[in-house]
Amino acid sequence: MDMESSRNQHEEQGWETPAIDDDHQSADKLLVESAFKSTPVPPWTQQITLRAMVTSLILSLVFNFIVCKLNLTTGVIPSLNVAAGLLGFAVIKAWTTTLAKAGLLKQPFTRQENTVIQTCVVASSGIAFSSGTASYLLGMSPYVASQGGSGNMPENVKKLSVGWMIGFLFVVSFVGLFSIVPLRKIMILKYKLTYPSGTATAYLINSFHTPKGAKLAKKQVLVLFKSFVFSFAFAFFQWFYTGLDGCGFSSFPTFGLQAYKQKFYFDFSSTYVGVGMICPYMVNVSLLVGAIISWVFMWPMIEKKKGDWYSADLPSSSLHGLQGYKVFIAIAMMLGDGLYHVVFMLVKTILSLIANSRRKDSSIVDPNGADLDSQVVDYDEVRRSEFFLKDQIPNKVAIAGYVALAIVSIIAAPFIFHQLKWYHILVAYIIAPVLAFCNAYGCGLTDWSLASNYGKLAIIIFSSWVGLEHGGVIAGLASCGVMMSIVSTASDLMQDFKTGYLTLSSPRSMFFSQVIGTAMGCVLTPLVFWFFYKSYNIGDPDGTYPAPYGLLYRGIALLGVEGISSLPKNCLNLVITFFLIGFVINLLQELLRRYETRFGIYRFIPSPMCMAIPFYLGGYFAIDMCVGSLILFMWERSNKKKATDFAPAVASGLICGDSLWSVPAAILALVNVNPPLCMKFFTVAQLNDLLKGS
Amino acid sequence: MDMESSRNQHEEQGWETPAIDDDHQSADKLLVESAFKSTPVPPWTQQITLRAMVTSLILSLVFNFIVCKLNLTTGVIPSLNVAAGLLGFAVIKAWTTTLAKAGLLKQPFTRQENTVIQTCVVASSGIAFSSGTASYLLGMSPYVASQGGSGNMPENVKKLSVGWMIGFLFVVSFVGLFSIVPLRKIMILKYKLTYPSGTATAYLINSFHTPKGAKLAKKQVLVLFKSFVFSFAFAFFQWFYTGLDGCGFSSFPTFGLQAYKQKFYFDFSSTYVGVGMICPYMVNVSLLVGAIISWVFMWPMIEKKKGDWYSADLPSSSLHGLQGYKVFIAIAMMLGDGLYHVVFMLVKTILSLIANSRRKDSSIVDPNGADLDSQVVDYDEVRRSEFFLKDQIPNKVAIAGYVALAIVSIIAAPFIFHQLKWYHILVAYIIAPVLAFCNAYGCGLTDWSLASNYGKLAIIIFSSWVGLEHGGVIAGLASCGVMMSIVSTASDLMQDFKTGYLTLSSPRSMFFSQVIGTAMGCVLTPLVFWFFYKSYNIGDPDGTYPAPYGLLYRGIALLGVEGISSLPKNCLNLVITFFLIGFVINLLQELLRRYETRFGIYRFIPSPMCMAIPFYLGGYFAIDMCVGSLILFMWERSNKKKATDFAPAVASGLICGDSLWSVPAAILALVNVNPPLCMKFFTVAQLNDLLKGS
Repeated sequence: MDMESSRNQHEEQGWETPAIDDDHQSADKLLVESAFKSTPVPPWTQQITLRAMVTSLILSLVFNFIVCKLNLTTGVIPSLNVAAGLLGFAVIKAWTTTLAKAGLLKQPFTRQENTVIQTCVVASSGIAFSSGTASYLLGMSPYVASQGGSGNMPENVKKLSVGWMIGFLFVVSFVGLFSIVPLRKIMILKYKLTYPSGTATAYLINSFHTPKGAKLAKKQVLVLFKSFVFSFAFAFFQWFYTGLDGCGFSSFPTFGLQAYKQKFYFDFSSTYVGVGMICPYMVNVSLLVGAIISWVFMWPMIEKKKGDWYSADLPSSSLHGLQGYKVFIAIAMMLGDGLYHVVFMLVKTILSLIANSRRKDSSIVDPNGADLDSQVVDYDEVRRSEFFLKDQIPNKVAIAGYVALAIVSIIAAPFIFHQLKWYHILVAYIIAPVLAFCNAYGCGLTDWSLASNYGKLAIIIFSSWVGLEHGGVIAGLASCGVMMSIVSTASDLMQDFKTGYLTLSSPRSMFFSQVIGTAMGCVLTPLVFWFFYKSYNIGDPDGTYPAPYGLLYRGIALLGVEGISSLPKNCLNLVITFFLIGFVINLLQELLRRYETRFGIYRFIPSPMCMAIPFYLGGYFAIDMCVGSLILFMWERSNKKKATDFAPAVASGLICGDSLWSVPAAILALVNVNPPLCMKFFTVAQLNDLLKGS
Repeated sequence: MDMESSRNQHEEQGWETPAIDDDHQSADKLLVESAFKSTPVPPWTQQITLRAMVTSLILSLVFNFIVCKLNLTTGVIPSLNVAAGLLGFAVIKAWTTTLAKAGLLKQPFTRQENTVIQTCVVASSGIAFSSGTASYLLGMSPYVASQGGSGNMPENVKKLSVGWMIGFLFVVSFVGLFSIVPLRKIMILKYKLTYPSGTATAYLINSFHTPKGAKLAKKQVLVLFKSFVFSFAFAFFQWFYTGLDGCGFSSFPTFGLQAYKQKFYFDFSSTYVGVGMICPYMVNVSLLVGAIISWVFMWPMIEKKKGDWYSADLPSSSLHGLQGYKVFIAIAMMLGDGLYHVVFMLVKTILSLIANSRRKDSSIVDPNGADLDSQVVDYDEVRRSEFFLKDQIPNKVAIAGYVALAIVSIIAAPFIFHQLKWYHILVAYIIAPVLAFCNAYGCGLTDWSLASNYGKLAIIIFSSWVGLEHGGVIAGLASCGVMMSIVSTASDLMQDFKTGYLTLSSPRSMFFSQVIGTAMGCVLTPLVFWFFYKSYNIGDPDGTYPAPYGLLYRGIALLGVEGISSLPKNCLNLVITFFLIGFVINLLQELLRRYETRFGIYRFIPSPMCMAIPFYLGGYFAIDMCVGSLILFMWERSNKKKATDFAPAVASGLICGDSLWSVPAAILALVNVNPPLCMKFFTVAQLNDLLKGS
């Protein structure tokens, strides 16, 4: 479980996509395909249209900027599926309506086309996450290495450059697509796995293309546009007051200067208010709880031991000082949480497979006991299966593709990272398909993708295998990329197959739009990252773009190569404690879910993963997100229906507008146009001193 | 015409009360009294209940704070009738509901009681305006005199003290009530004058006491409460950042530092956003236009003539410098506007009286040609007339009261202001009833009360009569008080008689609640003013409480005693020009209203009175008010019905909350508790210099 996933963050947290609730789904369910009875389904070659690809490219760029910005600020990324679906619909609908008015429309806009756009955009912005520009790749950079202490030697540092990053991504990103293709029929048709996100997206797209749905969609687009404009304008306005460091709204000591020093303040970021509106209440509360535990209690207590537990004359960013406690305790809690989920998923997958194989008859029950009434083969199912089986992708092609790409990767990757040998990569590619299957299967059951956890596992394995003196840090981080790409794209693709199944889109068009999207992502992601990397000081813990996962991932690699002996005093005990806490909290929640059904206390157990992020970053973005929760809560109280229909649109608008302002802001920074004003906060005494001094 | 009136500001501007539109009224009209057929009307002694008086006292205090704060900041005061009606209803309803639940309720809450509260509160907060604590009385104070230049001599200055202020108010405020009482039957029953504000208030109260109306009223009260809490909390929050002068949200250079220097910025005042929501769009636009004309064009141009038109080494507050242009041009425009309205009203009153006397039959048509279908004597009218005539106030009592109080005043006032002789006051009391009748009649026709214009007239007459060396400034300002009190309370009382007529409240209970309200006001107003006066530097043009009318009224008195010879170079030409412009714009508007009916261009002619205020103060509050307009406009566009029902409640809440925060803020200032933080704005260069300097 991880916060950084763009596509699957919702899934990883078991978060529901708020746009479509269950009632909606079950009510629509019986009607969907009969409503579309008279709508022809175009052949797969006409599902992937030029206009769809152009739209995808534009939206990919937009979403790459957004995901990249989120990655570099806090790493908390909400599901942007709703925004992608809405914007895709808006763009193509505007285009086709214009053409239709001019009498030039040749091909009507179909839901299959919409699904293709959605798949392509999500694949491309998925790369923005799995490429690790803000995690494992950034962790190789000299600047992050300089914060990391002992690993800061030429062998364990690699200067970032847009060239080799694009190359590396192309080498590793496509393998995953082939790894899972042969299993699509078993997973979708036989096991009938749920894939909640894929299903939700499909229902969203289906609803857009029924007449009533289109009306609501148009309204949603309008609302999204308004909140986009507001958010962009507000970000622009804020910019004027940030003339010097520590100026502007993002330094607003909302709860006083003391709280500001402990990183508790509202930083007026529309992005995270929007993110908070999309994320479930419990996620936001968990973040806040984590921030309070760490920054109110733990860090001040550890800081008092300065000179005793750790040397007092270390720079504040050293991993051997207070920063080390922050980084390694956060990692421990994340790993504890991750380990629980990997174990849980493996057990569940195995049990479910055993159950399936025992049942000899062909009717397969959803192992989760979900609402799939598979005994009754209804019209929808027949029609969907028919289209799903129409365009085949031969297993031979899939296997040949996997092997060919793996060989390319085994040969090419060591040229980029000489610390990584060919046999390391070979081992990775032998293990990977199993993990990819586990992940895709687990994701189908629970909507959680554990890609980043498998990545972290790979870091520890390969970095300790290679060893510090042979560049184990770089080797570990690079192998993380290899592993994560396969595992992540595999579950993404299966989600898309499910969406395609439910919208009668061809598996072939799904596959190819995923390929195209991946290619777009491999080019766009490094370029967009480079844009930020050149304009700002990425990875500065106190800057605008702290990019927390850079140092955290490097910290994992350091644990792998150096062992735990390098930690400051008592840090090991704390690390072990928090690792166990991370595991136990999850276990406790699962037990409560099963055996305490009366009050549903399990719903109030905070998530260890969420609690760990503010350990490193502080509470400011948790406060933003709680503000988002509060807005949503009050909106729901005053008008539940409207809130359900429009909150995701408002939230998406807030995120898009604020994030896109970073483009002109970065350009202005590049060409040295600085904001004219400073909004600065002082205590009365400070300001008096300043004014006297001058 | 004037902005300072609390009760009649709406009326003076010909502003509609937005809570109740015409459709509402005409639709309800036929039903009102039949809906109340079975509701008994209590005798007048039971209309004035103890609980009503207690409620009135509390609300009077609240409204006195609000009006006083508004008076001292910009002098722009919206109609608070809706808030008074709503809050009165809320308090008593809560009280009676609680009693009813406990089984202790003896007397049900009637609309007559509600009318009594409304009358009492409006009378009391009316004193907050007509008492002139922010205009003629403040104009006597040494601090304002020191800004006024030539009149700053012991004879023309009077130190403010809460003792003589209460005494003076008691002496002058009750006379007006008796001056107009004998005419009530003629004006209400015979002439059937409209009194739009009184009528609107009556419909509001009637609607509250019908079952459906009560539900809406409760919702409105809830909305008012929410916006009150928000506004109070926001003001509290803002307080923390105002540690030193020039700090905080009220110094936010929203449009840049250059615009801030020209007083163009949004100062985050919820009060004036609320005021803007209540005032018609054209008022807010007029204010903005005035601000732009003066601060963008005129003042910078005059400032360039520094050293030529006026001496360069004058202090910036001197009336012989730039400040003089600001003050006297503003006065000129106000006087031009005022003169037009006095002339217009006199002509209209005379014409209407002639028309009435010509018509021999008893059926009187509304001279405005309004929608009073007086030919048809309906059930409502019969029943209302019956109750209106039930409790008499004998003419002898009224006349005796007027003469007795006038004698008291003639004897007592010279003890307070030795500059004023008994014959001056006698003359004032001989002229006053005629002006009071004109004003009450005109107000009944057009909803405009011209009390402050008659007051300004009195200043010029009496100050030039007494002369500078004999204390003409003080004499003029004091006579303004004598005149304004009579004229203002007379039209207030007649409005209340109309409200009483429409709610079947007894004229006697109206009269007595007005008397009680006036008494409350005479005590509360000076005390509340004193509270502000002691906590802040009232009258500082650049401070939080510039109280513009203090200097403006003193300026009029100076014009009276010194003549126009004391003005700086070219100021006289400008004064005459703007006096004429003030007159001509009104004339133009009236002509367009009559003869250009196609486009209704007259609706887009700005009001000279409104334009004049920012001449002195700058545009910041005009921007606040335009923000209020903008909010209202967008709300009306998205949901007209809801905006109409709830905008006045939201606006009232914003005004009340922010204004009431000034009570704890003033207490904190008195006990020397200062805000801990400063939010300060710099250019990048400034801040760099500061930081280097220290």
